[in-house]
Amino acid sequence: MTVRAGVVVTGTEVLAGRVTDRNGPWVAQRLLEMGVDVAHITVCGDRPDDLSAQVRFLADQRVDLIVTTGGLGPTADDLTVPTVAALYGRELILDAELEDRIHAIVQRWRSRMSSAADSEPLRAGIRKQAMVPQGAQSISPTGTAPGVAIPADDSRSLPAVLILPGPPRELQAMWPEALDSAPVAEVLARRTQMRQDTIRGYRLSEADLAATLRTAEREITGFGELEITTCLSRGELEMVTRYAESARTAYTELENLIDKIHGAQVFSTDGSTIDDIVANRLSGHRIATAESCTGGMIAARLTDRAGSSAYVIGAVVSYANEAKTGLLDVPAEVIDRHGAVSEPVAALMAEGALKRLSVDIAVSTSGVAGPGGGTDAKPVGTVCFGIAVTGRPTVTHTLHLPGDRASVRALSTTAAMHMLADALKTR
Amino acid sequence: MTVRAGVVVTGTEVLAGRVTDRNGPWVAQRLLEMGVDVAHITVCGDRPDDLSAQVRFLADQRVDLIVTTGGLGPTADDLTVPTVAALYGRELILDAELEDRIHAIVQRWRSRMSSAADSEPLRAGIRKQAMVPQGAQSISPTGTAPGVAIPADDSRSLPAVLILPGPPRELQAMWPEALDSAPVAEVLARRTQMRQDTIRGYRLSEADLAATLRTAEREITGFGELEITTCLSRGELEMVTRYAESARTAYTELENLIDKIHGAQVFSTDGSTIDDIVANRLSGHRIATAESCTGGMIAARLTDRAGSSAYVIGAVVSYANEAKTGLLDVPAEVIDRHGAVSEPVAALMAEGALKRLSVDIAVSTSGVAGPGGGTDAKPVGTVCFGIAVTGRPTVTHTLHLPGDRASVRALSTTAAMHMLADALKTR
Repeated sequence: MTVRAGVVVTGTEVLAGRVTDRNGPWVAQRLLEMGVDVAHITVCGDRPDDLSAQVRFLADQRVDLIVTTGGLGPTADDLTVPTVAALYGRELILDAELEDRIHAIVQRWRSRMSSAADSEPLRAGIRKQAMVPQGAQSISPTGTAPGVAIPADDSRSLPAVLILPGPPRELQAMWPEALDSAPVAEVLARRTQMRQDTIRGYRLSEADLAATLRTAEREITGFGELEITTCLSRGELEMVTRYAESARTAYTELENLIDKIHGAQVFSTDGSTIDDIVANRLSGHRIATAESCTGGMIAARLTDRAGSSAYVIGAVVSYANEAKTGLLDVPAEVIDRHGAVSEPVAALMAEGALKRLSVDIAVSTSGVAGPGGGTDAKPVGTVCFGIAVTGRPTVTHTLHLPGDRASVRALSTTAAMHMLADALKTR
Repeated sequence: MTVRAGVVVTGTEVLAGRVTDRNGPWVAQRLLEMGVDVAHITVCGDRPDDLSAQVRFLADQRVDLIVTTGGLGPTADDLTVPTVAALYGRELILDAELEDRIHAIVQRWRSRMSSAADSEPLRAGIRKQAMVPQGAQSISPTGTAPGVAIPADDSRSLPAVLILPGPPRELQAMWPEALDSAPVAEVLARRTQMRQDTIRGYRLSEADLAATLRTAEREITGFGELEITTCLSRGELEMVTRYAESARTAYTELENLIDKIHGAQVFSTDGSTIDDIVANRLSGHRIATAESCTGGMIAARLTDRAGSSAYVIGAVVSYANEAKTGLLDVPAEVIDRHGAVSEPVAALMAEGALKRLSVDIAVSTSGVAGPGGGTDAKPVGTVCFGIAVTGRPTVTHTLHLPGDRASVRALSTTAAMHMLADALKTR
């Protein structure tokens, strides 16, 4: 059976666009992976009427589960639990045991802080957070805010609702217990298990993939049971397919067809990202970067990952030409002759990093990120890359990337990751 | 008068959490700045029923304006215009002149591409995009998708709706013309003009600001007319206040009170960010960074800005100790004696960058970003910073930052920006 869910994100700062919501996408992904259809995500500020209206709207849309995030803090403007409880006609009851647990958490935090908070408002805040709607199940807090799971009402006019806190780390840590709570488990038990698989391609056009999917539609029995969405992001084309166990053969055939036609562009069929692949292949290597237009973004991305100190030695951001010469030994006359944005300079930058940082692989970038600095010969978006590997000839590439400064820098960084993955594969 | 708006973001990839929505926040910010209240943002996939339900919901909430983003492409799953037109009972009519304009844009693009697209589907797609609901006004495309503005229906049971494309660059470029369109201008004319001012503090606690606001509530006449929201993000506390012209004195008094109590923590009252301030103060200087735990993030942030090549010379990411020694001249025995994460090493890193890159200001970071690598003496989150300035003694700081690896790295980067701003101020 199809089980449908809606997500309500609360918070004036999210509604006003000052903070990017990370919970809506995270919850949606988790639900989809489990085979729950997400029909709507809604965002509202800290106004009870607007929150009630959104919950009622989702109930009217016949969703089976509503997940809310945010509005569980100790202060008066955090209104999610009382607002939803009122809508569901459930009284709030103090859970004394929960109150003690929150108190213990707060005390532990306070003992590490210097600030001595006022005790009465503090107590009142803790009491507020320990109020649980009658017949609901509380979800243990990882910060100070417990979650709440309320079952669907008997007439089924209101679906089950799972109320979780706003800080993404707290929400994510509480997710497993929330799924096991009786009101949520009861909904999940009704769903058809779905698989979700992802194929990722680089330099693969949407139009070409669409043509292949039309072929697949004609040739593959059961293709109609595959729910496919494609999405182009940072130069990578991602195809996500959801399907029931009964359509597994159709998916395997589709995967084979795509591999046959686009094998050279597909870099992942098991969910791994290009960052996963590069990290894996870097095991046993030592890497450095030499960056101009990307200004440290490749190094920042490589070191984003825990454990990257096992293979990242360092980076030189040679933004000015004198830094290319001084730190990477690129002769000034080569820069004069070819320009800083050129393959000879990119090659020497990568080789300079290889030597100076004693690594066995180095990648370099030198480009025109814009908005100024473009010429007829080298317009904005022109980026030269170098890949130097010990014992191999240095390889260079030039790409012409679209978009504004941020786009050129982001696409260059992704391109460098793909070049690294390729260079490390054939080693 | 208060004018209320709702925003509908369409796109299965956004709903599924695979793409971060940039349009909802952007549109909400623009509307708020203009004095329009944003009550709801909703996200739905490419399903006409779900889109209709959301538009109806917003109409039921008595908003005066609905802005939709996405779903204007040439293909069959792009459904926003026909779906909304059906809901508003308006026939779709081919705008031949618009069709010609879209065709010209597409031809210009195709001439730069190598791929020869099929002509009939192409023509059909262009025709689809040139269908405008009866009585609506089209907004000129900057990509291939024109926007549409539909007036409120006469009975006012359906509000005015502005339909814009999904790609953020297209949407943003079309915004001025959209605001000028008769259906939108008519709504905006009814609003009370509101000002919006932002105060930004660093190392200012929410609790302390809340206490000051309670004082302000008691002491400032007209405080109740100020709509204040506060938000903590990446270590910075932002307070945004919306108010009508009549409350300007109250706001000025509030600003003075905050300056009196928190002057040392407030770094901006005119909307500028710490990046704006650093960029401004760097004029005439030459800067370099020497980064360990931030792995290039400070350099990437400094070079994010167009024109940064006027002052950013370069950076050394000395992730491994040998890079600290080899590229920044930090003696190995200092690292052995104090550990890589120590103020003496941070000081020498900054001084090494100053000298090697011939700059007049350099900032360094060396810390334990986690999840591993922490010790009792230097737990995860311990980060040492150095600021070296020509002709001045080098200054060091140690911070203990909360959260996971990503949080420690992001907070360190922001901390470095504030240290740079301070160092450049007193120069």
